[in-house]
Amino acid sequence: MVGVPDYEARALDLLPPEVVDYYAGGSGREQTLRDNPAAWSRVRLRPRALRDVSRVDTATTVLGTPVAAPVLVAPMAFQGLVHADADRATALGAARAGTLLTVSTRSSLPVEDIGADPWWFQVYVMRDRDLTARLAARAAAAGARALVLTADTPVVARKHRNDRAGAVSEEHFLAALGPGADAASAEQAADITFDEVARLRRDWGLPVVVKGVLRADDARAAVEAGAAAVLVSNHGGRQLDGAVATADCLREVVAAVDGRAEVYVDGGVRTGTDVLRALAMGARAVLLGRPVLWALAVDGADGVHAVLSGLADDLAHTMALAGAPTVADVTTDLLAP
Amino acid sequence: MVGVPDYEARALDLLPPEVVDYYAGGSGREQTLRDNPAAWSRVRLRPRALRDVSRVDTATTVLGTPVAAPVLVAPMAFQGLVHADADRATALGAARAGTLLTVSTRSSLPVEDIGADPWWFQVYVMRDRDLTARLAARAAAAGARALVLTADTPVVARKHRNDRAGAVSEEHFLAALGPGADAASAEQAADITFDEVARLRRDWGLPVVVKGVLRADDARAAVEAGAAAVLVSNHGGRQLDGAVATADCLREVVAAVDGRAEVYVDGGVRTGTDVLRALAMGARAVLLGRPVLWALAVDGADGVHAVLSGLADDLAHTMALAGAPTVADVTTDLLAP
Amino acid sequence: MVGVPDYEARALDLLPPEVVDYYAGGSGREQTLRDNPAAWSRVRLRPRALRDVSRVDTATTVLGTPVAAPVLVAPMAFQGLVHADADRATALGAARAGTLLTVSTRSSLPVEDIGADPWWFQVYVMRDRDLTARLAARAAAAGARALVLTADTPVVARKHRNDRAGAVSEEHFLAALGPGADAASAEQAADITFDEVARLRRDWGLPVVVKGVLRADDARAAVEAGAAAVLVSNHGGRQLDGAVATADCLREVVAAVDGRAEVYVDGGVRTGTDVLRALAMGARAVLLGRPVLWALAVDGADGVHAVLSGLADDLAHTMALAGAPTVADVTTDLLAP
Amino acid sequence: MVGVPDYEARALDLLPPEVVDYYAGGSGREQTLRDNPAAWSRVRLRPRALRDVSRVDTATTVLGTPVAAPVLVAPMAFQGLVHADADRATALGAARAGTLLTVSTRSSLPVEDIGADPWWFQVYVMRDRDLTARLAARAAAAGARALVLTADTPVVARKHRNDRAGAVSEEHFLAALGPGADAASAEQAADITFDEVARLRRDWGLPVVVKGVLRADDARAAVEAGAAAVLVSNHGGRQLDGAVATADCLREVVAAVDGRAEVYVDGGVRTGTDVLRALAMGARAVLLGRPVLWALAVDGADGVHAVLSGLADDLAHTMALAGAPTVADVTTDLLAP
Repeated sequence: MVGVPDYEARALDLLPPEVVDYYAGGSGREQTLRDNPAAWSRVRLRPRALRDVSRVDTATTVLGTPVAAPVLVAPMAFQGLVHADADRATALGAARAGTLLTVSTRSSLPVEDIGADPWWFQVYVMRDRDLTARLAARAAAAGARALVLTADTPVVARKHRNDRAGAVSEEHFLAALGPGADAASAEQAADITFDEVARLRRDWGLPVVVKGVLRADDARAAVEAGAAAVLVSNHGGRQLDGAVATADCLREVVAAVDGRAEVYVDGGVRTGTDVLRALAMGARAVLLGRPVLWALAVDGADGVHAVLSGLADDLAHTMALAGAPTVADVTTDLLAP
Repeated sequence: MVGVPDYEARALDLLPPEVVDYYAGGSGREQTLRDNPAAWSRVRLRPRALRDVSRVDTATTVLGTPVAAPVLVAPMAFQGLVHADADRATALGAARAGTLLTVSTRSSLPVEDIGADPWWFQVYVMRDRDLTARLAARAAAAGARALVLTADTPVVARKHRNDRAGAVSEEHFLAALGPGADAASAEQAADITFDEVARLRRDWGLPVVVKGVLRADDARAAVEAGAAAVLVSNHGGRQLDGAVATADCLREVVAAVDGRAEVYVDGGVRTGTDVLRALAMGARAVLLGRPVLWALAVDGADGVHAVLSGLADDLAHTMALAGAPTVADVTTDLLAP
Repeated sequence: MVGVPDYEARALDLLPPEVVDYYAGGSGREQTLRDNPAAWSRVRLRPRALRDVSRVDTATTVLGTPVAAPVLVAPMAFQGLVHADADRATALGAARAGTLLTVSTRSSLPVEDIGADPWWFQVYVMRDRDLTARLAARAAAAGARALVLTADTPVVARKHRNDRAGAVSEEHFLAALGPGADAASAEQAADITFDEVARLRRDWGLPVVVKGVLRADDARAAVEAGAAAVLVSNHGGRQLDGAVATADCLREVVAAVDGRAEVYVDGGVRTGTDVLRALAMGARAVLLGRPVLWALAVDGADGVHAVLSGLADDLAHTMALAGAPTVADVTTDLLAP
Repeated sequence: MVGVPDYEARALDLLPPEVVDYYAGGSGREQTLRDNPAAWSRVRLRPRALRDVSRVDTATTVLGTPVAAPVLVAPMAFQGLVHADADRATALGAARAGTLLTVSTRSSLPVEDIGADPWWFQVYVMRDRDLTARLAARAAAAGARALVLTADTPVVARKHRNDRAGAVSEEHFLAALGPGADAASAEQAADITFDEVARLRRDWGLPVVVKGVLRADDARAAVEAGAAAVLVSNHGGRQLDGAVATADCLREVVAAVDGRAEVYVDGGVRTGTDVLRALAMGARAVLLGRPVLWALAVDGADGVHAVLSGLADDLAHTMALAGAPTVADVTTDLLAP
């Protein structure tokens, strides 16, 4: 058992159907869910011949933090639904793979107990801003190196496949928030704007990553509001159905940011070739969601480590085949017109 | 039972096959019938991040009439074929959903008995112009707020699936016209031109909507003839087979009209995302046909109300996800290039 | 039994498999065979609204000969394989439908016995030029109004499906040529050029149609060599496999001819909408092959008449729906961009 | 049994599954493997009418060597896996077909025993450069007319289908290298650059063909390094998965080379029409891999001869149908825009 498809097949087999539906499903008619991987596949590459690739190095940094490969772990809620060790196992696997974890606001464990290093913290701004502040304060105190502001979830989209899992997730959520939390105050706020970027930055002194940017104007607004990075994301096809695939708008965002911030991307990345495509379009790193979750379900920290290091290996291999020995060599000319 | 697909599945199950064929079928090889929904699906969206969508309002007006959402009911013939309460149930459901109904010339009930409010009346200009005038006079007297001139049916297209339903529909039609009507004089006139727009307007003092416009020149001609609105429509894929999908020519019509009239669209609209796409292309509202009919068949006025308010809810949800709190915020930049 | 698909289904059922293969098959991998109808289907139309179509007239002329509709009969070999009355029945059906027949060099009956009126004669230039001349002389004497020079068959392409029918067709061919013909001298000449156009014109005093033109330069060469018309054709997908579909190159040929000759097209035309598409692209008429043959097989002259007049009716209907009451009104603006 | 598909079907039937997998498989998700033939099929042709094609001649030269047709044999490893006579049978079949063979570094027989004429030798530059030099020296001494430098295999890509065949191929490889060879020193070198072109040329006095070029800049670099020819190749979809299909980048390479070297192409060529497409894009010849191997498996030298001469016949036939009597007449205007 080594690759992403193997873990997925095993996980779909062993998890209860409602848990599979909760994670695998997309919103609406799941157009965007299907289009995310398809859009990567449509991109054809022009490998370089006769380059010295005797030493291939996938190492890079994200907001100054060194990682073994530009493959990070995306925030995912309620990991306790798929494995008893939950986020702790994910953190251990990511650390062993030499990469960075994004801990979800909706983690199954208190951030202090996850043991991630290095890590970022994903912020959902809730109606109860004090509750939000308490969570951010705990994350900052526990060593989070950046805050990832969720910008694409003013409301939660409808997911037909997820109906069965609804009750389960809410109960997990409140448990994660700790005593005194109630459902209403923990609902997401629908009135947040780009002002939130400056506020988070000022309040916690941490760089802010804006997650859920799919347009040039929003990318510029994020940068102008002080974001250190933007994450091109359609929430894995789980928010606006019909939204553009991330591979189809990444270049627009990279051009708009114009080097003033880092740009990451998630959604449908499954192979080393996909990572190469993303880097060639100007992304600094990709974030991996569901594949990590399936590996966690099947094999805990070992699975997470295997899938992350396997993808890094695959990327190294792909870079050699493309004639690009370092991530700096993965440039736009590798993309066929 | 809540969504459009559910009502459709149920209705196809419970209605006699010839009635299903009459409504579900398209003309010729049904290319346009299939292309209408596919063309909406091809349009990808670029949602906006971090907009204040704590208050989302789908309300708008059509020709000055306020509606709860830009989702109107398209004219449909012979509704008595699917439900005993026929157009009356549709009118009740539309009114409860806070929207506007278009009553067909071929309604199963006399317009005076339908009880629609607000409503428009769809005019087929028949060979017997006096018969046409009598119907228009009755509609005007009964409170219709506009006349919808059918511009795409100089002859009725051939529909292979409809052969079985032919006799049924003719009998219904003559019944609807009342005593003294005969088939020949009630045939549609093939010689009407844009002059009809001015004539209708002058004779009845009501604004005229030209239904069945797919080209810039026709849109301009309609406006210059005094139309208050044009409806981009290929008659639900039931007239010229091979005609362009409405989603593929809407922008051309909007550009040609250039704000001098309102523009609506029908054909294949099924989800809140589809409505958002239409509005982003410049439509002021969409008209819904078959989905209303299936809901009527299954659940009468309750079904019609459910499908219309369900779609309005879905639109509100979609607007929140797209960062567009009002219909005025649904602009062309939401469309991926 | 009325439409093209019905006759085809019946014919495929009743004819021996090797005869079906001979007519239905294409060359090579049959890409062009499949692409011909698909290319018409890809063309979307923009019907006009509110035109006076109370009188629709499909009549036109081809090289001065009036026809009831711009739907002619393409040359087809060995019609005796599918019906005892062979070309005579086809001629009768075409005459009753008010249209023009192209008699094949490889007709199953001597041209004098076919009774076609009006008709053109298709010329294969054979190695034995005297044999070719004798056939042309007989055609001229028997009243052919034009000679259709086959320009796309310097060699006969390989058709895997036709292997079974090979022996049958050769025997028929020699029978058609009459006593004294032998296979070698009747092989097609591979060395003919555009000079043949002037030669045919001079020798027989008849206008020449060049059949098998797919390129602007060849269209210009044909006109400059004195052709009265060019026929855009890839031989029904039976010669160069991979050749462009006729719907995809018709406009290029029309532009190159620039009104100096008439332009016709064949290949995959099956519906009135397809004929409308061809006319809108600038063709003066279409030629129909296989559909006529299937109708001949099923019902002799009655079948041929039914399929030709049925398609003319369908065209009239389509013209009404498109807002084009005469063939002169079928212009390029009907094509969606 | 005559065509490529027949030999393939037979070979897949009679060979052990692991051998089929070794040859038929591609890397990764096999996108490029599938895209190679599909890309040729997407190219539509514009045949010329009325050209004198009474004499068709497929003869050409490659690097000055006359061949009966522009269809060469690509290098293939371990042919002993499919036929007892291995490369010797392939060489005999190629010679009888009047064409040129490329002998693989990983031939199953010593180059001196293969008896090819004319032939080129494919060079994998190994870590042990002396081993590489010894092989090149033996090839030069045995009469190779050019060296084909493998430029796209700095590492060997992963092929899921090939896992079963791994052990078999290594054992064969070492056998082919002769006594004293060990696996580590025979691994391919990952540090070779365009300098290798000049070195090979200088050391062995033979023209160098750079195999595995998919980009304009690499094509120019090869020419400037002294290459006599470049071979547009993605290694039959066996190296970088997601790499552009060769048909989709051939024109770019031809334009960059600009007549300063010969350009060949391989990957998915299966019919005479495909060869015509490649020549029309500017290739001087195509190389054929898997089809030769399947024919070798089924019928030894006779099979190889049959498939090569069959494809040459098919090309001649296609050239006649396209109005191109010589390979010089196969020009870019044959490609539909």
